[in-house]
Formats: sequence, structure tokens, C-alpha cells
Amino acid sequence: MNLDTLSGLSLIADQQGSESEIPFRAYNPATGKPLEPEFHTATLDEVEQAAAAAEAAAPILARLDNRTRATLLRSIATALTDAGQAILDRANLETGLPLPRLQGELARTTGQLKLFADVVEEGSWVDARIDEALPDRKPLPRADIRSMLRPIGPVVVFGASNFPLAFSVAGGDTASALAAGNPVIVKAHPAHPGTSEIAGRAIQQAVRAQGLPAGTFSLLFDSGIHIGEALVHNPLVKAVAFTGSSTGGRALMKLAASRPEPIPCFTEMGSTNPLFILPGALRERASALAQGLQASFTLGSGQFCTKPGIVFLPNANNSEFLNPLSTAVSALDPQGMLTTGIANRFTSAVEQRSSTAISSIATGKPSQSDAATGQASIFSVELDQFLKDHQLEEEIFGPTTLLINYGKPADLIPVAQKLHGHLTATLHGTEDDLRDARELIAVLEHKVGRILVNGYPTGVEVCHAMVHGGPFPATSDSRFTSVGTRAMLRFARPVCYQDFPDAALPPELQRANPRKIQRMVNGTLTRD
Amino acid sequence: MNLDTLSGLSLIADQQGSESEIPFRAYNPATGKPLEPEFHTATLDEVEQAAAAAEAAAPILARLDNRTRATLLRSIATALTDAGQAILDRANLETGLPLPRLQGELARTTGQLKLFADVVEEGSWVDARIDEALPDRKPLPRADIRSMLRPIGPVVVFGASNFPLAFSVAGGDTASALAAGNPVIVKAHPAHPGTSEIAGRAIQQAVRAQGLPAGTFSLLFDSGIHIGEALVHNPLVKAVAFTGSSTGGRALMKLAASRPEPIPCFTEMGSTNPLFILPGALRERASALAQGLQASFTLGSGQFCTKPGIVFLPNANNSEFLNPLSTAVSALDPQGMLTTGIANRFTSAVEQRSSTAISSIATGKPSQSDAATGQASIFSVELDQFLKDHQLEEEIFGPTTLLINYGKPADLIPVAQKLHGHLTATLHGTEDDLRDARELIAVLEHKVGRILVNGYPTGVEVCHAMVHGGPFPATSDSRFTSVGTRAMLRFARPVCYQDFPDAALPPELQRANPRKIQRMVNGTLTRD
Repeated sequence: MNLDTLSGLSLIADQQGSESEIPFRAYNPATGKPLEPEFHTATLDEVEQAAAAAEAAAPILARLDNRTRATLLRSIATALTDAGQAILDRANLETGLPLPRLQGELARTTGQLKLFADVVEEGSWVDARIDEALPDRKPLPRADIRSMLRPIGPVVVFGASNFPLAFSVAGGDTASALAAGNPVIVKAHPAHPGTSEIAGRAIQQAVRAQGLPAGTFSLLFDSGIHIGEALVHNPLVKAVAFTGSSTGGRALMKLAASRPEPIPCFTEMGSTNPLFILPGALRERASALAQGLQASFTLGSGQFCTKPGIVFLPNANNSEFLNPLSTAVSALDPQGMLTTGIANRFTSAVEQRSSTAISSIATGKPSQSDAATGQASIFSVELDQFLKDHQLEEEIFGPTTLLINYGKPADLIPVAQKLHGHLTATLHGTEDDLRDARELIAVLEHKVGRILVNGYPTGVEVCHAMVHGGPFPATSDSRFTSVGTRAMLRFARPVCYQDFPDAALPPELQRANPRKIQRMVNGTLTRD
Repeated sequence: MNLDTLSGLSLIADQQGSESEIPFRAYNPATGKPLEPEFHTATLDEVEQAAAAAEAAAPILARLDNRTRATLLRSIATALTDAGQAILDRANLETGLPLPRLQGELARTTGQLKLFADVVEEGSWVDARIDEALPDRKPLPRADIRSMLRPIGPVVVFGASNFPLAFSVAGGDTASALAAGNPVIVKAHPAHPGTSEIAGRAIQQAVRAQGLPAGTFSLLFDSGIHIGEALVHNPLVKAVAFTGSSTGGRALMKLAASRPEPIPCFTEMGSTNPLFILPGALRERASALAQGLQASFTLGSGQFCTKPGIVFLPNANNSEFLNPLSTAVSALDPQGMLTTGIANRFTSAVEQRSSTAISSIATGKPSQSDAATGQASIFSVELDQFLKDHQLEEEIFGPTTLLINYGKPADLIPVAQKLHGHLTATLHGTEDDLRDARELIAVLEHKVGRILVNGYPTGVEVCHAMVHGGPFPATSDSRFTSVGTRAMLRFARPVCYQDFPDAALPPELQRANPRKIQRMVNGTLTRD
């Protein structure tokens, strides 16, 4: 599609949303200027229409054969690729993210859809289980009992600001909810409505091409929070997925829990991703560590959920690390931020940190323009001070990180025990360091969703084994992930069929195993 | 152990709890008389001690090899069997449940522990996934990424009143939480504290015999709700499991969600388990259906979460069903209830139903003694009246059920669509009936955790495929089950290890696959 054809209207199944009295516009963060066209906040009636259409689509999607469901996901990927230049150009205007980064994100988004398609087509993800009847068992016979994961129902997805493609309209939440067989209603992030409309139309087009019910997908605009709230409150909605701020995520958790029928609400709220530099690693490769850390905490201008925001650093002999780090940070140009609001919140959080007794190690170049930018910065604090000030464990969204000087590795155990939940933890160590860090690793296993060795947490691979999750406040529920193929499990629930006639069972549970999936039969995993 | 040795004191890891100022006693519901000895409510300090001991035990349990963890579960089963007569006699005194039923429940409880032991020992339940490094991938290399389910941390279990063994101290919640590698703190149900103490001591003995940390298990008494509340609020507690009333379950959900760190809280709150008699089945076997329904709704005096409490019955020619049902119910003796409180609540709920325009079809014999009993009853209502009165869908815990007269099977679809969540739904039909019921089944899939054909929902098989769950208000989260081996998934969370040295990985993720479990390697399920 062409950028000139943006309508600015919500997509309510196959209908266009209405115009609102007070439209809103996206802003170009690089210029501070508003972008055409006007976008229109959806109405409460449209929320109900989208939910009713999703409800009507749900049983049809639930019955869909695996191949059609997989084809839908692949068609969305194709439609996104076809809209490639338009979507990249618009995303660049709306987010200020550079084109190469957006190209990578688009590839990630389409790759993600295709990976889910593969899993759906293979089919074993549904955890089919069969316990055959034991009519002669004493004292009581056993019935024939079969179960598998089935779709949960209409899912509301909130687009994220920091990944306008991969965590937004056609991103991981939408892909995993569709893959699990559910209709999806997306609440577009107001900072990139044009990107959202293009992606939404790509999905709409794929839904139409597969002949699926229009209610399979809707996209609603809102410059504020009322439409999102109404969606989460709608009784036909059965699950919620959100990536964004802690404030937003917690509000949605409360809302979902306070409904007459509480529903699952997976919120990924970011974290500070502790990174531990162990003494041997510092001795061996201080300068490489400085370079790696600088690249990681400023990647995407520090606007990643997995940005390392607290770095534990051995006290002694660390000038070989600090000097190159300071030099590199001091040379950094102002970092483009996603929105003026994010830039302002970042600046005031950093100013607040500067005003305390915490040492500033280095700052990047200050801004000279009207662009939404953040000045990179590194702070430093002693371990005991970190332990006293809980605020230091909280995320500052943007290009800043905090070095925490510690004495000996054993001091890290009680610190790790006191950490709250994070998405990731990272250790940099030699073989000896890591051997001595067993206890630290055991503690971190209870604190995060992913532990890395000698790497950087930014860059979340989309694969089967990925866990992008972690204990609260990183997410609302550490038992799930929002990235990787396990993400589908958020939107599925087991349903059990007892003594069913074979023909009335879903194919996955029929005696002949027509889909040739792996099943657990009488406790044994088999493809028979 | 001997019944004379009951201490009446909580088990705080390996310590005895203190005596309280206002002790409480169990009551024999068959006589209304209190039982010896006195039991003592735990203190808030003891809650903290139990939580601290559990926290200390957690990392040790998490590192345990599969065989030791399986042996713990089997040892608990053996210790329960050894305590068999004592536990059966005390449970009979405290609950009024007949000995043969309790013998069956004890066998179910020990069988359940052994089934979880088998799953733990086999080991593949942890969903190990490995995506190997792709160092040459363009544009970016892929790291080595591995993940598996790990224990969530200390779990608080609330004993249920209606299954003093299978859903109580050593019941399914405790078994699945231990199987998943977590320490457990049980809040004993105050109606059967002696049974709880014997079961608790059996677990304590098995924990000791395996040389495991004492904090692996604690058992706390409370005649009220404060200790349970304090446990759910304790920051070291990471998950909650509850089987009981809707009021209790909803209160716990709120409490768990309102903690500074919200935690998963699985509450199974019972339901009314709609049962649909389709016209062909009624024509073919009216009398057998009458007999089956009567046996099911009065099983355990109607005190099962899966009791069929609403029964949809075709309007025409149903006297061949109603006559034998009325005769059977009228002949029923007063049904022994678990406690005087439950008996009183049952009687007043039935009286309230009697006072409305709903027809009484039959009642059993009224009580002539001081025993806690319930008078069996069957009511009848027209479909349109059922649709107008939401209260009729709510559970009355005890031996009563409601027949709902419907015209034609098509009328059932909109009714089913309006149902809230239930644990089960049952269809009785001929082959033709069931072929015509496809749409009804599709609707019910979204309403319940288990659908049965030509059977009765009471009697929940403990097996791999069982789902004892369902959408709210049946449970707090339809994505989980509290019965069957999937119940372990409530208490586990995925943890991801990126670029780890082999020796630092859990054995399940090491290159050589030393535990020989099934894993997903680069997307393919394999035991290599």
C-alpha cells in the first residue's frame, strides 16, 4: 500500500471505524513536527463491535485445520513483506528508528510469524494426551480420557512503543495468539498509528485471502487509555497481552483481575537486567567488556526491555574498564528517542539520579536540536548504597546504566537474593569465575527468566527455547514468555474429552492420529 | 502412628508449633460432639518461620536429582499407607465419610503420589528445549539457547473440606507442588485437623528419611482465616493452591493479586456441572438415566465439586425418567454431611429454592437426629425461567439438583452460550443425538474443562489426560488443572540459559542428555 492511502480509521473486523471529534496525530521525534493524516480514536460501540466479531470468529478459528492456520500466519508475513517499503518509511517517520534497524525488525516480525506457522503445522504443541479406557479395572473401570490445548478465546493485544513491528500490531503477541487459534483485537500504540494501520491492513488482507471470518482481527486507535480499558473490561475478551511500562502493565493487571470474570493478563513490563562482571573476566578483557557494555546499553538508544541497567563491577583495578567506557560514552552523540514524552521522562529521571550522591562517570554529548533525544550517561555507586536505595533497581528507559562497585564475589549472593524479578541476568566470567559462581547462578534462577554467560541481554532471539519473561515486576506471570514459540501457551487451555465417539473428537485426539502428531498415550510419548 | 499421640500442634519444618490461648476442636458430624485433642492455631511468627524454612529448602529441592524427588513422593505414599488405619479412623470421625469411601480416597492419594513420582523420574515433563548456536548465521550469529521448566518456589496449599485425603495435606496440590520441586506449606482445614496432623507427620517422616531440608514441608493449623491470609501475604511464598468455596477462592485470588509482588493463585471453586439429556437417550434409557443421575448427584452426599447440579431434560415423555427418579430420591435416608456448618448452609439454600416458584419434584427422608445431614431433593424449572434467574446456575453444595425442561435441542445452544465457566459438562445421547450436538459441544468447549459423553462427572480420574479445571468462576485460571499430571505445570516456570558452559547447566539441558529425556532440539522432538 501507499502511504497516501492511510485512512486514520480503526479496522473493526471488515468495517472502517468512524471519525472522532478530536483526532490525533503521530509526531516525528526527529523534528518534533506532527505527521499527516489525522487518526481517529475508536468509540465504545466499536469496541463492542470488534469484540462481538471476535467472539463470532472464535469457534470457526478453533476448528480450523492446522494447514489453514499456518497459511494465515505465512500470508500475514507475505503481506507485511509486500508492504515493506511503506511500513519501513512510515515507522522511520513515527519512531525515529533508523531504517536498517527497522529492516531487521521487519525480518524478525515475518520470521516470527513463519516460525509459529511451522509449529502450528507440525501440531504437537497442543500437548495431546490419551489415557485409554480400562473397562476391567478393579474396583472401578477407567473411562477413555483425552485432552489437548484448545484456544482460549478473543485476545486483546496492546502495541508497544519501542518495537513498532516486532512487539506491535503484527508482532509476537498477535502471532502467538493467532497461532494458538484465537481472534485478536489490537489496541494500536498512539505513537505509531500509521505503521499500525499498514500492518493491520496486511493482516486484514491475509484474513480475507484465507476466507476467514472478518472478526479474526480488529485494530483500534486511541490517543488515550479509555479504549484499552474498555477492551480489557469487555466480557467477550478472554486474555490480554501487553508490553510496555510498569505503570501501564500494573494498571492492566488490576483491571483484568477486577472484572466480574477475571482473565489471564500477560504484561511484560521491562526490567533493569543485572549484569555481573566477575573478577577474572575483568582482568582478562576489561576493554572488550567496556565496549560490549556500551554497545548494549545504548542499543536502540537504551529503549530495550533487556537493556543492562545495573552492572556489578569489581572494585579493584577497574580503570582499564572505566577509562575506555568513559571515553566511548563521552563521544556519543545525542541518542534519538521514540517520542518527546519518553525523552522528557528519561531526562528528568537521569537528572534526579544526578542530583543524589551517586557519581556520574561519563555523559555523552548534549542535544543541540528540537529532536527528541537522550544524553547517554553512566553512573556509579557503592554496593552498600545500592542496597539502601531500592529506587536504584528500577528501570530508567533510555541510554543510561549504573555501575555498582562490589568487593568480592561472595558479596554478590546477598545482593542477588534481594533483587526483585527481572527479565534477564548476565554473568561475565572466566571458567574459574563461573565455577565459583554456582551459588550466584542458583539464586538468579529464581529472579529472572533468562541467564546469559559472556553475552549481552539486548537482542532477544525468536526461537523455541527463548524465555522473555521473569518474576514480577518484570512480568505479571513468570510461568509464561512473550517471545519464542512457548508464547502460544499464554493463549491456550487444556480441554478434556471423556468417552467421546471418535468422530466427535478434535483430529489431534482421534484414534488414528490423523495429524501424526506426538501424543502422550497411557503415559508414553509416541507418534502412533 | 497411634491416634492417642495427636499433638494438636502445627508442624513448622521440624519444630512443633506453640499452644494457642484459644484452642479449637474437630467435631464428629455424625454426633455433633467435639473430638479430642485440642488443636492450636499457629502464630504469625510461625508463619514466618515456616516461610523462611521453605525459602531455605527451595534451592536444595530445585537441584535434587529426579530419583530422589521421586523417592520422596513414593516414601510419602508408603508412610500414608503405614498410617492407614489411624488416618482412616480419624478421617471417619472428623468427616463422617464412610470407611469404604475413605479407603478408596487413601488409595487415590497414594496412587496420585506414585503417578507424579513416575513422571518426575521419567523427567521429560520439564519441556527441555535447545536451540543450538549458529555462529555463522547472517546478519547476526545465534547464541546457544536452552530452557526448561524449573520450580517456582514455596507453595501454600489450602486443605479442602470434602476430600480429607486426596485434596488435603498430602493431596494433589501438595503432590504436584513437591513433584515440581517446590517446598510446601499446608494450611490444614479446621474440620479435620487430626487427619491433617497424621498426614502431615507422614510427609515429615518421608522428608526426614530422604535427608531433605526440614523446610520442605510445614503444616499450620488455624480455626479461622488469619493464618491463611498471612501465608498468602508472605513475600517468600511464590504460589497458592486452594480447593473450596467460591467465597474463599475469590478472597484468596484478590489477596494474591494485591500483594506487592502478585503471585499465581490457583483456586478450584466448584461448579454446577451442566448435564444435558438429549431426546434419543431419554427415549432409549430413561430409567437407567434416572438411576445414574440419582447416584451421581448424591455421591458423597452431593459434596463433590463435580456434582451435576443442573440437568437439562427434554420436555416430552419424560415420566419414564421422572417417576423412577422421584421414587429413588424419596427413599433416600438423610445424607451425612461433612460439618454442621455445611449442613446448615445446604438446608437454608434448599429452603430458599423451595420458597420460590420452582417446583419440587421429590425430597428424601428428613433428619430425625442431631447428626449433620442433608435432605436430598430434586427441583424442576422451565428453560425460560432458568434463563431469567442467574442464581439457579450457582452451586448448592450438597445432595440436590435442578432439572431444567427444554423443548428442542436447538434451544440448548443459546443456553450453553450464556453459561459461565464450569468444571465439567456432560451429554447423554444416542449416536444420532451426538451427531446433531456438534454445535453444542463446540460451545461447551469454551465453558468447561472436561466434557463427558454418556457418563457422570463425579469421579475424577487421576491420570495424564485429566483436566479438573475450567473458566472462571470454576477456577481462577482455565489454563491449568488441579488433578492429573498436568497439575505440576501450575508450580513451574521456564528458565532460559544462554551460552552456558555445559557443566553449569541443569542435567536436563546438558549436551549429552544424561537424563535421557525427550527434548526439543532445534525444533525437533528427540531423545538424543
